[in-house]
Amino acid sequence: MRRTLKAAILGATGLVGIEYVRMLANHPYIKPAYLAGKGSVGKPYEEVTRWQTVGQVPKEVADIEVKPTDPKLMEQEGVDIIFSPLPAGAAGPVEEQFAKLGYPVISNSPDHRFDPDVPLLVPELNPHTISLIDEQRKRRDWKGFIVTTPLCTAQGALFPLAPIFMNFKMDGAFITTMQSVSGEGYPGVASLDVIDNIKVLGDAYDAKTIKEIFRVLSEVKRNVNEPKLEEVTLSATTHRIGTIVGHYEVLYVTFKEDTPAEKVKETLENFRGLPQELKLPTAPSKPIIVTDRDNRPTVYFDRWAGDVPGMSVVIGRVAQVNKRTVRLASLIHNTVRGAAGGGILAAELLVEKGYIEK
Amino acid sequence: MRRTLKAAILGATGLVGIEYVRMLANHPYIKPAYLAGKGSVGKPYEEVTRWQTVGQVPKEVADIEVKPTDPKLMEQEGVDIIFSPLPAGAAGPVEEQFAKLGYPVISNSPDHRFDPDVPLLVPELNPHTISLIDEQRKRRDWKGFIVTTPLCTAQGALFPLAPIFMNFKMDGAFITTMQSVSGEGYPGVASLDVIDNIKVLGDAYDAKTIKEIFRVLSEVKRNVNEPKLEEVTLSATTHRIGTIVGHYEVLYVTFKEDTPAEKVKETLENFRGLPQELKLPTAPSKPIIVTDRDNRPTVYFDRWAGDVPGMSVVIGRVAQVNKRTVRLASLIHNTVRGAAGGGILAAELLVEKGYIEK
Amino acid sequence: MRRTLKAAILGATGLVGIEYVRMLANHPYIKPAYLAGKGSVGKPYEEVTRWQTVGQVPKEVADIEVKPTDPKLMEQEGVDIIFSPLPAGAAGPVEEQFAKLGYPVISNSPDHRFDPDVPLLVPELNPHTISLIDEQRKRRDWKGFIVTTPLCTAQGALFPLAPIFMNFKMDGAFITTMQSVSGEGYPGVASLDVIDNIKVLGDAYDAKTIKEIFRVLSEVKRNVNEPKLEEVTLSATTHRIGTIVGHYEVLYVTFKEDTPAEKVKETLENFRGLPQELKLPTAPSKPIIVTDRDNRPTVYFDRWAGDVPGMSVVIGRVAQVNKRTVRLASLIHNTVRGAAGGGILAAELLVEKGYIEK
Amino acid sequence: MRRTLKAAILGATGLVGIEYVRMLANHPYIKPAYLAGKGSVGKPYEEVTRWQTVGQVPKEVADIEVKPTDPKLMEQEGVDIIFSPLPAGAAGPVEEQFAKLGYPVISNSPDHRFDPDVPLLVPELNPHTISLIDEQRKRRDWKGFIVTTPLCTAQGALFPLAPIFMNFKMDGAFITTMQSVSGEGYPGVASLDVIDNIKVLGDAYDAKTIKEIFRVLSEVKRNVNEPKLEEVTLSATTHRIGTIVGHYEVLYVTFKEDTPAEKVKETLENFRGLPQELKLPTAPSKPIIVTDRDNRPTVYFDRWAGDVPGMSVVIGRVAQVNKRTVRLASLIHNTVRGAAGGGILAAELLVEKGYIEK
Repeated sequence: MRRTLKAAILGATGLVGIEYVRMLANHPYIKPAYLAGKGSVGKPYEEVTRWQTVGQVPKEVADIEVKPTDPKLMEQEGVDIIFSPLPAGAAGPVEEQFAKLGYPVISNSPDHRFDPDVPLLVPELNPHTISLIDEQRKRRDWKGFIVTTPLCTAQGALFPLAPIFMNFKMDGAFITTMQSVSGEGYPGVASLDVIDNIKVLGDAYDAKTIKEIFRVLSEVKRNVNEPKLEEVTLSATTHRIGTIVGHYEVLYVTFKEDTPAEKVKETLENFRGLPQELKLPTAPSKPIIVTDRDNRPTVYFDRWAGDVPGMSVVIGRVAQVNKRTVRLASLIHNTVRGAAGGGILAAELLVEKGYIEK
Repeated sequence: MRRTLKAAILGATGLVGIEYVRMLANHPYIKPAYLAGKGSVGKPYEEVTRWQTVGQVPKEVADIEVKPTDPKLMEQEGVDIIFSPLPAGAAGPVEEQFAKLGYPVISNSPDHRFDPDVPLLVPELNPHTISLIDEQRKRRDWKGFIVTTPLCTAQGALFPLAPIFMNFKMDGAFITTMQSVSGEGYPGVASLDVIDNIKVLGDAYDAKTIKEIFRVLSEVKRNVNEPKLEEVTLSATTHRIGTIVGHYEVLYVTFKEDTPAEKVKETLENFRGLPQELKLPTAPSKPIIVTDRDNRPTVYFDRWAGDVPGMSVVIGRVAQVNKRTVRLASLIHNTVRGAAGGGILAAELLVEKGYIEK
Repeated sequence: MRRTLKAAILGATGLVGIEYVRMLANHPYIKPAYLAGKGSVGKPYEEVTRWQTVGQVPKEVADIEVKPTDPKLMEQEGVDIIFSPLPAGAAGPVEEQFAKLGYPVISNSPDHRFDPDVPLLVPELNPHTISLIDEQRKRRDWKGFIVTTPLCTAQGALFPLAPIFMNFKMDGAFITTMQSVSGEGYPGVASLDVIDNIKVLGDAYDAKTIKEIFRVLSEVKRNVNEPKLEEVTLSATTHRIGTIVGHYEVLYVTFKEDTPAEKVKETLENFRGLPQELKLPTAPSKPIIVTDRDNRPTVYFDRWAGDVPGMSVVIGRVAQVNKRTVRLASLIHNTVRGAAGGGILAAELLVEKGYIEK
Repeated sequence: MRRTLKAAILGATGLVGIEYVRMLANHPYIKPAYLAGKGSVGKPYEEVTRWQTVGQVPKEVADIEVKPTDPKLMEQEGVDIIFSPLPAGAAGPVEEQFAKLGYPVISNSPDHRFDPDVPLLVPELNPHTISLIDEQRKRRDWKGFIVTTPLCTAQGALFPLAPIFMNFKMDGAFITTMQSVSGEGYPGVASLDVIDNIKVLGDAYDAKTIKEIFRVLSEVKRNVNEPKLEEVTLSATTHRIGTIVGHYEVLYVTFKEDTPAEKVKETLENFRGLPQELKLPTAPSKPIIVTDRDNRPTVYFDRWAGDVPGMSVVIGRVAQVNKRTVRLASLIHNTVRGAAGGGILAAELLVEKGYIEK
């Protein structure tokens, strides 16, 4: 039998933090034991937290006192694993500090995503990259380690693109996003940007989305051997609209040879990864749910889809545009699959593979 | 000197109707003389109209009584021209009736858009198609005639696509739209479809958008002779979001040969049509305004752009995706440029070309 | 042991219908056995239902075929009880028909709310009015009966007002509401009425709210004997804003004598009704939850409050305005406490009191 | 003939700043000559300004360079008058500095609103308070002076309350507000606070609203002599909802004696102030417009009402609640009448009365 792992959640009162708390409150062997938050140290978790998700603050954590991000206190509390959905800039040094001290750190932050010895992990897509941890520890002389997960927007595209890239001669993908405001946390997006308006995220956001997609695609195991990834064209045009949670993305995917949309659809429907094989507790039985309804997926009705709510990406509108082009739309729960849920799944994989002791 | 033309506006209390009224209230030679409406006959225009646009109901029409769509009454009032933004289905027979009676009918409705002898007119793009009127009159033995304007969504794509198709070896365009709720009139889009949600418009709407774009492209004058239009791929994925007015569209445009985004941008910036040449009163000096800001165009800030407010399409995010692919975003004021304003500009062209007597 | 009651839900695919389905799917002795719907007969429930609530369509009903509102079919299926959240006008005759046939009909519709022999029941407030059923049956010669629940907006005010009226010399209440769009069903409220706008509901809606509050207040058991209800002033100014679910109401309550806000608050906090005493399965342990936070209640964070989610009304902003005036704000989940949940609680009371056989 | 006054607008790129610019661009004798802004010094006004209002950036200011808030530069430019919509805290010392240097400073900021020698001016309501300037100058030994305008929310209530208090034996007013997000500037209100939600502003905001209403009421000229203002009860419950511009407020007004709603309505309709008498350029002919439609006023359709758009407060829903209580709803354009427009009108009054030299 497994012992229970005590998790510290950094930024536990934030929009991703609450999803960690919600999901871990029912986890078979990871418990939300240490809730770290900045402005609210010393106060009961429920009192200081905007619970911008389903259900209510779990009883077992409602009265827990929010604590500082303090290694000594964490040691006293016997923390085993650290989840870090801290904002860019703040995350980097904190995560390094904890890894050095021997903790496994699962980060949803961008600061270490492109360190060559740090996995940028989507457990279904590039699970073998966890072996980078060995190199990371050696190179940095750390007992602990850092594992990161990609930007939610990149994941919304990666879930369809990775299986396609693995199985078809994919030539390019032209992405247009309609992302929810929760992606920027709270207070985050100004209401004046999304009432009777669209917020155009611009060049920098477009570019980082693509960069992360490229890195993960470079790590998946392909069944086809062309074109080379360097020859693949990717482009993203990114926006926020006035939705609370759920990133919706339209993808036009082009191929080097005639490719039936029907086959693409089958590939997506049948896609399973290592987490499904290992039956990890937070792995949905289907990482991708394909819908045939021509008015779906939509943000409101599909973001919580799947047997592990919020962990399945819903894909629809799959259509043949021309012989070598397929269109589809993807919906991802950005703070669950795209952040907290992805982090927990990563932790489960690391436990299973022995990188975190049970 | 011109005499003043008396215009009847059908559906004058609707969302397109009010833009006709607003724009004609200041028109040099067309006056909003006859305001037809269904549920509100006999009541003062201001009282029964949701003025969902800028400014206030023009004084000269505020107290005009709303009238029925009655040919006899219109004759008595000396109506010279009819603008018909009636809904699909309702529009067709009414428009035919008036054309038969000798009226020039400018329609924003879909019912006659694909009659082969009826122009589907965007004055800047396919002005010569007004000569179809001659055939129409002969064939149908009408004194009047019907001219239609395309779906607003199609126009939002056509303004960039037509100049590109005319000047470059365009191979295809992959369009994703975020359209405003005004496109379905009032009451139109249910609030539950766009609060914390996106309304996916589905296959039928996607298809009609493409069909209209194809028809107009088939009528523009090209400077290049390949590929043939039949070889061009067009696809649209259409949605409504909770914006009031303004359709935003992202286009990925592919080419048969290397095509610099910079050249595409210049072509769009420099594009002028016959209305600009003729200095028609409702013609903006620039039908297309190109912006370099990477957070624009946006619905709120750009929909009223141009020297004839709402008549210029704003294009931004022009970027080289790969040597043969260019990305851009387009914003069109759907009820002005995409409907009422387009109708008035059509009328002005028809006056100038002698199809409507002055 | 209780036998399981088979419930028919009329309008089962609507916004109140889905809450009946959601809540009954886990009910100890009432099962959602017959799902009636108009436009979708013969199709699987999940396919035709906009599940505009938390969670997902319960597995046990997902594939159930939607059926017509047909008494013969219901008899064949062994229906024991009928829940009717049908719209005004449609509900009345249907409900009578079923009552005549012997069914207990719990209605959320307005059609019979003011029949003098029909209870307008809020189980915590006027439970003894169920004895009207005896008179109803006698007078109408029915084996079944109709019980109605009040307008959600009226209930949002009644939960604070009834305990206050019962215990203090209440003189009047001045109510201002901000109601959610779900109150009008789907498609319901036009998006153009609530994007960058407020929908003023007007005189008729204001009046019916007050009328229902008066009727229920006339039926509660008072601990004070003045003023007479006829001397009490009630006024409501009602609006919809762009929230999905949850009606928020501000009440200024005046008294005939000095009344400390603190005492009012205690009375509300300590209020319990017969359902709490009887421990009915759908009764929240606290029908009223009082919050001290000065930025609460809010729609998003409080509508699902309580140990039976959505069944507790959250009251906050309790403040002394002057010696004889107290201010408070109330938040009610309009489709749960204000409709489906209230209906189920009514059924449970009727079972307990022997009006529905178990 | 008047000389043209050169105005400096502090915070000119903000949400109130743009209304100053818009209104002064067409002003007969005050010109927007000096546009001060913090983050955008040295850049063209149009480029750095979110023009969150009607129309477009006026041509004459589009290319003006944004300047620092620097007294020397202002002197060089010959600035005559300063409009200060700076945020609380930042405004106070800056305004004092300029007043000391001899400038008339019209402030929309709270910092000096309760200085006993500083007018809190609504030109229609308490115009004679400008004589406080004499005392201010003497006491502080200033050549210039500061005049402030009240909080927009207070003004939305004051426009109906002041004429009522002046003419009837008003006993109290119970106010509930639904305010727009523009009231907090940009970025201001977090989108997560108003998407599917209401932002409850809380005790402090409620209190300051009341405090400002009391001060202005204490300065109006009454036609009745009871009750004393100290005996009047005022209460406000304040909220923001997802509207862009326009504060909507419901008021229940109580009286010491029987007071017909019809008479209150007439008083409001006929209300005119000194600005109307003096025909100041920015004075609307009717400061209050009363509507009889029971679905009005609404934010979208009434905020720009009046012959000086945005300067008239629209009042509707006037109804007799009981013999001594009247209900009404008020809509004010918060950044025009409630801020910039009110400031310009104040300046015009000060010019007319000789406090600003022409």
